[in-house]
Amino acid sequence: MIVVGLMTHLNSGYEERSQQAKNPAAKRLFALMAEKKTNLIFSDDETDPARFLGLAGTMGTEIAVLKTHIDILEDFTPNITKMLVELASKHNFMIFEDRKLADIGNTAVLQYTKGVYKIADWANFVNVHVVPGPGIIEGIGRTNEQIGDSLPRGVIILSQMSSEGNLATDDYTKKAVEFARKYEGMVAGHIGNGGDVDELAKLAALSVPGHVIFTPGVKIEEGGDGKGQRYSSPGKAIAAGSDTIIVGRGIYGAPDPLKAAKAYREAGWSAYLKRCSKV
Amino acid sequence: MIVVGLMTHLNSGYEERSQQAKNPAAKRLFALMAEKKTNLIFSDDETDPARFLGLAGTMGTEIAVLKTHIDILEDFTPNITKMLVELASKHNFMIFEDRKLADIGNTAVLQYTKGVYKIADWANFVNVHVVPGPGIIEGIGRTNEQIGDSLPRGVIILSQMSSEGNLATDDYTKKAVEFARKYEGMVAGHIGNGGDVDELAKLAALSVPGHVIFTPGVKIEEGGDGKGQRYSSPGKAIAAGSDTIIVGRGIYGAPDPLKAAKAYREAGWSAYLKRCSKV
Repeated sequence: MIVVGLMTHLNSGYEERSQQAKNPAAKRLFALMAEKKTNLIFSDDETDPARFLGLAGTMGTEIAVLKTHIDILEDFTPNITKMLVELASKHNFMIFEDRKLADIGNTAVLQYTKGVYKIADWANFVNVHVVPGPGIIEGIGRTNEQIGDSLPRGVIILSQMSSEGNLATDDYTKKAVEFARKYEGMVAGHIGNGGDVDELAKLAALSVPGHVIFTPGVKIEEGGDGKGQRYSSPGKAIAAGSDTIIVGRGIYGAPDPLKAAKAYREAGWSAYLKRCSKV
Repeated sequence: MIVVGLMTHLNSGYEERSQQAKNPAAKRLFALMAEKKTNLIFSDDETDPARFLGLAGTMGTEIAVLKTHIDILEDFTPNITKMLVELASKHNFMIFEDRKLADIGNTAVLQYTKGVYKIADWANFVNVHVVPGPGIIEGIGRTNEQIGDSLPRGVIILSQMSSEGNLATDDYTKKAVEFARKYEGMVAGHIGNGGDVDELAKLAALSVPGHVIFTPGVKIEEGGDGKGQRYSSPGKAIAAGSDTIIVGRGIYGAPDPLKAAKAYREAGWSAYLKRCSKV
């Protein structure tokens, strides 16, 4: 019996995936990862503005994307997002606001464009839950298309989650991918379950080549954290179909966060090279 | 054949339901509705702070609850929520921040307590999606129990939605009710699909007597709005198991909003009296 290697879009390099992407932010991210040789996303969960910006500046050289929860910062001022954008430009990373919009299209658009945080002004990526139906993708996607500045923007769909007992599984995931295919140019990619590589592989197989698979639930030391979050290693997550690994506590909780970021960057990048047979 | 009327907790008055409620905010809301003779929730979707507060003041006498999207207001200052709380006290209504929290417990708690809006300081109710699993209920519920002031607080679970193509159906709804039962004292109630009375009746049958069923998707004129939202009448929604009707555009979009609010109040209240055979 001859075992034939299964060739899928996962074996393609980021350069080729960038060509295939129809969403401008996905296109830019694939190209950026190839240029900068990193597929690491740092989740900056600091609530103190100075420490939040400090971490963004420290990690900037190592990462492809900085993930924010802008709405947990104490004493937010618009100057904070202005400084964040300057850091992103200086260090060449993109910004992903992990807002998890989850309302009907009309309300989600207001939450995205108005209020204090004005996410649409500075974030390349914002994620949405599709439990309200596809209207949320269409609402945010249309808004992005209408803004008309040079910032590439895209919607990330929470097609899976990595928290215990989550309901983004099976038919829910299938529906999410169906919506993503329907609005291919508005959607940058999916959140996949980095903590369960079998589930992740199913999502990756369903997804189109131009959509990025983002995975939380990744830690160099596998297992659980006792707080309902499960983890697998960067190598396993990327082999199963993750394109970018999202790491928070594994970096900022380490004795030397920059050293930890470099270790995650190296683990993520070598797993990617292996997956597309570049080594 | 003798037709026997099906007696369920839906036939109980709000006074009795208040006694049965284990969550302090649900207990208070049932009692308030009975006292004030209104089961109307006004959804104040204004983005201009002066008009937002103006509408809250105008509708205050008619409603049981004011529903807010605090994160769509332009030029938010903490003074706005301070004034909102004063209006709630003056006119005897409760406040429901329609934030649709949808992250893992730890992050949702930060979004609820920190940032600019500090929802936990002023809202009686906040709603959560359970797609991340039950950890979000436990996180917010524990936080509410630990605050230790006199404001009654409760979590509302989005167990159904009324938007087109939404995924909060069937097994998702069953899981949501299962979580609500498990954390009965933390949960004030459910969002039910006011736009589909058959689905709503299923949710109401599964829910415990002490949990309030809140329904958007209710309009005196039934049908769709062409924007992916379906509507049924207050009478049908309440007969099917809704305890409180949430109305936005049907009121603020009317030529005379106060007159429209009074009409919804009357429709909602008479349907309730009919359901529990008080007329």
